[in-house]
Amino acid sequence: MSEIGAAMALLKDEVDIVIPTIRSLDFLEMWRPFFQPYHLIIIQDGDPSKIIKVPEGFDYEFYNRNDINRILGPKASCISFLDSACRCFAFLISKKKYIFTIDDDCFVAKDPSGKEINALEQHIKTLLTPSTPYFFNTLYDPYREGADFVRGYPFSLREGSPTAVSHGLWLNIPDYDAPTQLVKPRERNTRYVDAVVTIPKKALYPMCAMNLAFDRELIGPAMYFGLFGDGQPIGRYDDMFAGWCSKVICDHLGFGVKTGLPYIWHSKASNPFINLKKEYNGLFWQEEAIPFFQSVTFPKDCTNAQLCYIELAKQIKVKAFQDRPLLLQAG
Amino acid sequence: MSEIGAAMALLKDEVDIVIPTIRSLDFLEMWRPFFQPYHLIIIQDGDPSKIIKVPEGFDYEFYNRNDINRILGPKASCISFLDSACRCFAFLISKKKYIFTIDDDCFVAKDPSGKEINALEQHIKTLLTPSTPYFFNTLYDPYREGADFVRGYPFSLREGSPTAVSHGLWLNIPDYDAPTQLVKPRERNTRYVDAVVTIPKKALYPMCAMNLAFDRELIGPAMYFGLFGDGQPIGRYDDMFAGWCSKVICDHLGFGVKTGLPYIWHSKASNPFINLKKEYNGLFWQEEAIPFFQSVTFPKDCTNAQLCYIELAKQIKVKAFQDRPLLLQAG
Repeated sequence: MSEIGAAMALLKDEVDIVIPTIRSLDFLEMWRPFFQPYHLIIIQDGDPSKIIKVPEGFDYEFYNRNDINRILGPKASCISFLDSACRCFAFLISKKKYIFTIDDDCFVAKDPSGKEINALEQHIKTLLTPSTPYFFNTLYDPYREGADFVRGYPFSLREGSPTAVSHGLWLNIPDYDAPTQLVKPRERNTRYVDAVVTIPKKALYPMCAMNLAFDRELIGPAMYFGLFGDGQPIGRYDDMFAGWCSKVICDHLGFGVKTGLPYIWHSKASNPFINLKKEYNGLFWQEEAIPFFQSVTFPKDCTNAQLCYIELAKQIKVKAFQDRPLLLQAG
Repeated sequence: MSEIGAAMALLKDEVDIVIPTIRSLDFLEMWRPFFQPYHLIIIQDGDPSKIIKVPEGFDYEFYNRNDINRILGPKASCISFLDSACRCFAFLISKKKYIFTIDDDCFVAKDPSGKEINALEQHIKTLLTPSTPYFFNTLYDPYREGADFVRGYPFSLREGSPTAVSHGLWLNIPDYDAPTQLVKPRERNTRYVDAVVTIPKKALYPMCAMNLAFDRELIGPAMYFGLFGDGQPIGRYDDMFAGWCSKVICDHLGFGVKTGLPYIWHSKASNPFINLKKEYNGLFWQEEAIPFFQSVTFPKDCTNAQLCYIELAKQIKVKAFQDRPLLLQAG
């Protein structure tokens, strides 16, 4: 793993940490030992006149709604607000190879030995090692130290595929929808699963952006968070939408998506009643949207994420959702 | 979980424990507290004149090569020997709903808290709870205590699918092929991953029969271990072959395959030189066999595992491997 160690030292100049915030950035104090060497892009969600203080000593850019309107002009309406989707403005302006995005209510978690988890380091390890989307390895990530491909794993597939997405998880408050929050108000995630898994080709998953990293050069254009939240009929589906789009495009381009480690500590449950109001329409809509994404195919000349996204937008517009302005606009 | 607890008490009459053995059954002493209430079917591999002693106090049937020849007559050649494939004779004669099969060099493992793992109990829990083959749940098995479906998981899929296969893992000696054994002679699996995962629809995996349970009524006919081992050109692919067949049939019938917990303690690595000799032809063969299985489809009238298996045998014979007597005979 010394190769990876060396690569990580260099990556300080190749990673942007993207933080959408509506409250405060106090959580950065806890992350200081891990984040301080990196550049932050902070997007203020909600009212731009509210002052949000960035703790001293961090290297950052800061944008609010006014900044985005000024920079994007008439196209600014493609960046949604009040749903954390505004983070994708940072994906748009970043010039770095890797993005790590984290919510402002996510703190440093501890592993079972009590050691603080450097989430960014684990994401980079995950992104720098290949994925195995074409055959499931029962001992999980074969590229981790102490693991390998098991008997019966085809040798032709052991080189793996480039990893485009690293999806991290949450201890304490799990990422539940409003109905589950309402039914299980006291449920906490205490199970530390010491694994990274490649989500197989053709399988979709619910991508949560609370603790997420990706290779912007490989999959950046597919990480658009759509039109959700403020003024839109559906909220809390911005990351899900980007997850469906990016997964089908990864599948087509031969890139891998991994989920599992690292954990962050998710401190507070959002209000389930407000969430239900936001999600309500989405619960129906996803039942139609997901089968569409499960059946998407791309022509061979879609050879990168940008070309795939243009094609996907056409298919959404023409085939699937003519009466559904949400996806149509998102496309 | 009290529902499952009650179900498990009843399952004593619905589970057969299948053990192929060529050495000795001393390992049963360690399993006594967990296995003694159940019925064992022991298949002696290799020389039938060798006496194998069953520790006292177990309820069992015992078969050797002579018994199988007598019972199956001219069809006895479908049961391979010297590759642990002989265990599938027990699958054939069992009348129970569930099968748990374990190798004679597998001992009771401990979880990270030091508690001995009741592997059979975990397999039964896995088989009694549904699977989620159509959408990946990032918090792993949503039916485990303390877990659930995460935000964005379609509600229409939360009833899950019947679970047909529970694939358990191994601490200490991992199930590696001969080349990996040769390259990493000292590698031991020490990572306890506290998870059960549904392998998504359309994804294949290397099914190892060392620590495996399945619902014989749902998938039994597909758990045939083919013609491998003694007198055959390929060894150590019997369980892999059954894994490919059973997975594609589960996918067609809407059944789930779960992997992960429980762990057993795998005590000794088999000889990598002997394994290489056995596997050698298989390493090439699987590179052709797996793409075939990845593309298998079944007509709608294949409504159970038996009908699917007859269809699969036809496809193997006609389409894929006319010059490959191994799969042709296996079908």
